[in-house]
Amino acid sequence: MTDRTLIADLAPLPDGPVAVAGWVETVRDQKKVQFVVLRDESGAVQLVRPRPEGDDEVSSAISGLALGSFVRVAGALKHDERVKLGGIEVKVESLDVVAASLPEQPIAADSSIDKRLDHRFLDLRNPVNALIFKVQTTFEHALRTWWVQHGYIEIHTPKLMNSPSESRAELFQVPYFETTAYLAQSPQHFKQMAQAAGFGKVFEIADAFRADPSFTARHATEFTSVDAEISWIDSHEDVMAMHEAVLVAGFEAVREAHGEEVERLLGVTVEVPSTPFPRIPLARAKEIVAERGYTVPRADADMDPEGERRISDFVREEFGHDFVFLTDYATSIRPFYHRRHDDDPALTNSYDLIYRGTEISTGAQREHRIDVLLDQVRDKGLDPAELDDYLEFFRYGVPPHGGFGMGLARVLMLMLGRSSIRETTYLFRGPNRLRP
Amino acid sequence: MTDRTLIADLAPLPDGPVAVAGWVETVRDQKKVQFVVLRDESGAVQLVRPRPEGDDEVSSAISGLALGSFVRVAGALKHDERVKLGGIEVKVESLDVVAASLPEQPIAADSSIDKRLDHRFLDLRNPVNALIFKVQTTFEHALRTWWVQHGYIEIHTPKLMNSPSESRAELFQVPYFETTAYLAQSPQHFKQMAQAAGFGKVFEIADAFRADPSFTARHATEFTSVDAEISWIDSHEDVMAMHEAVLVAGFEAVREAHGEEVERLLGVTVEVPSTPFPRIPLARAKEIVAERGYTVPRADADMDPEGERRISDFVREEFGHDFVFLTDYATSIRPFYHRRHDDDPALTNSYDLIYRGTEISTGAQREHRIDVLLDQVRDKGLDPAELDDYLEFFRYGVPPHGGFGMGLARVLMLMLGRSSIRETTYLFRGPNRLRP
Repeated sequence: MTDRTLIADLAPLPDGPVAVAGWVETVRDQKKVQFVVLRDESGAVQLVRPRPEGDDEVSSAISGLALGSFVRVAGALKHDERVKLGGIEVKVESLDVVAASLPEQPIAADSSIDKRLDHRFLDLRNPVNALIFKVQTTFEHALRTWWVQHGYIEIHTPKLMNSPSESRAELFQVPYFETTAYLAQSPQHFKQMAQAAGFGKVFEIADAFRADPSFTARHATEFTSVDAEISWIDSHEDVMAMHEAVLVAGFEAVREAHGEEVERLLGVTVEVPSTPFPRIPLARAKEIVAERGYTVPRADADMDPEGERRISDFVREEFGHDFVFLTDYATSIRPFYHRRHDDDPALTNSYDLIYRGTEISTGAQREHRIDVLLDQVRDKGLDPAELDDYLEFFRYGVPPHGGFGMGLARVLMLMLGRSSIRETTYLFRGPNRLRP
Repeated sequence: MTDRTLIADLAPLPDGPVAVAGWVETVRDQKKVQFVVLRDESGAVQLVRPRPEGDDEVSSAISGLALGSFVRVAGALKHDERVKLGGIEVKVESLDVVAASLPEQPIAADSSIDKRLDHRFLDLRNPVNALIFKVQTTFEHALRTWWVQHGYIEIHTPKLMNSPSESRAELFQVPYFETTAYLAQSPQHFKQMAQAAGFGKVFEIADAFRADPSFTARHATEFTSVDAEISWIDSHEDVMAMHEAVLVAGFEAVREAHGEEVERLLGVTVEVPSTPFPRIPLARAKEIVAERGYTVPRADADMDPEGERRISDFVREEFGHDFVFLTDYATSIRPFYHRRHDDDPALTNSYDLIYRGTEISTGAQREHRIDVLLDQVRDKGLDPAELDDYLEFFRYGVPPHGGFGMGLARVLMLMLGRSSIRETTYLFRGPNRLRP
């Protein structure tokens, strides 16, 4: 490995020789002295070099530096309170251009999101954007650690399927040897299969695909889905209890590891939610927003995005909470596999989780009784024959179970106050965005 | 949640009332007494019930139990050394059939692998098979934990691409709105993009797709790829050093958590490899197997599966090691992006990792210098225009970097002495296997 000290680790070192490496963020090429801001994955530091009379190799190299070039630098660390950038600087002794950049950077911090995505590899050099993925790393790892510590099995379900996992709409088809495959819209079928297999509790963080023609800030054609599914539940209440516990673990880890930096770079405070999260039946939530002046303009029983924002405002005012479980969705707007209330088949044992006004997750108890499930398939006008591989899982016994799927990029968008999942996805994919 | 004690947690409890839940593995329905073996995700326990004269509700329920049905049982735990199954049994007081199975199980432990895969959800109830995925969970989590602790960023690269990531062969095409997408054969392009973005060190465990018509024990059309990529390396040696360190962390965690159970159920000892793993240049490896009587029957510079087995035998005999890095593959058999030796452009800074005779991984230093990379693209007869999105990553500077991709199911197959990745993949996908 290149002998170097991470820039973030320089400050505690005594004055003396150091080696650093990174890319050139700015150059101030003055007559008497040259300044370079060098950035690596951990931070930025000022490089300084007094200019010799008549220039030399190093001063010429600095003068010729294209912004963005990767360089290795040897020099002397000096602590100096007057240096704005962390109170340290490195006096350059040698500078080696490892990989020069083209002279013109194609994007700036204020470029349009579309232009930035065209050059995402440069956009991610912005420490604000890089931080998002450090937060993602910590968040995911905390979720997985919680699950592993609680005896969950991690599964990798196939994304190539012989039948749609959710619906025939918004489905990518793949010519597959002599037949056709479909890209999984969710791991729904196969995380339920794990319950039939007696795995008990499983999780998966993986890709899901929707041929969704939407251009909103919340939709993508390919996204990272965070999924869990557990057996032996009594109702969706058990799923919600697990869901909020694992989220708290994730938020705590992020606050601990990045709270200060998120505050500094993004101007956002990472708040760890208290448990239990508020729960409001969907029908009641619609009444509440209506009482507060907004009648959801939908013919069906569902909420809409504006309604979600307004119920979140209510919850924030009433309970001081950023999250709310909307529960007991009408059967008419839920998929066939959601379990219905024993005493009211018009309602399901299900929920959406709303975070700061946006839906981030859907969860439910599943119908595990094959005879009831078959009735529900027919009730939705679906053909049991087309679902046979799925239905087969239930014919040899499945314990009561449920789970949730959650969009990772949405959680990060809302946690970090970003305006779109384009900002919190490594490489966004949308209807007209397949590059780079 | 259903009130129950995991079966594995019964033994330390005192005699007295317990509740358990799981599926029925066997029933011995005798005149004087009924025995049931009940299994859950943690283990199996014997249920016992003295049969009353003229039967009652519980004895009738037990008589009517279809194997595989999920049941809840309340009863009295009793320690009794004579009970073969763990020295405990539960005397049944009540038994509730939560979900009955069809009467006939379609597979048995000795069914063909193809038949077992048709009913994978039942096949995975076999504790031998379930154990594989508990091991997978521990192994992966240890890898990720090592990476997170060493400052790596986890990325989720898109699987929908506008150009092939590896080659035009074995490529799944997806109609994508007005255009065509390709399913990623590896995260190669995008983990390298993270180096251009200055992320420094990244990892990803995710799906990769190959339209590979092979039917071997080692190939699948969809597989879980374990990938890492790091900046500021001097050569592929730095990649190998990281690779072996993270593998050791994984093997240690598996031995610690499952070593005993793997020994008992699979008859295999989990061996933690010592570092450094042996390294042999590929050309020398071919000489060694030739000296030992096997001339690799290939016109090109590559090894073949038999050669890999034989060099592994040699390494086992000579160094007592299960792993060997074969290094410095010929340029002619490596992709355009592998960095070539400074002093011999016919060789690359690359390696394959062989574990117990089978290749599990390819790693390399990448060519990061855009001018050299362009030469190598042309040298391989490729069209730079087709690779433009990838090449663009290099035009604004990229530090020296390298990484590896490793097949998760192959590692597990070899670690656990299974005969095929079909056994170590949750739901195998092959040219004629898209179900369930």
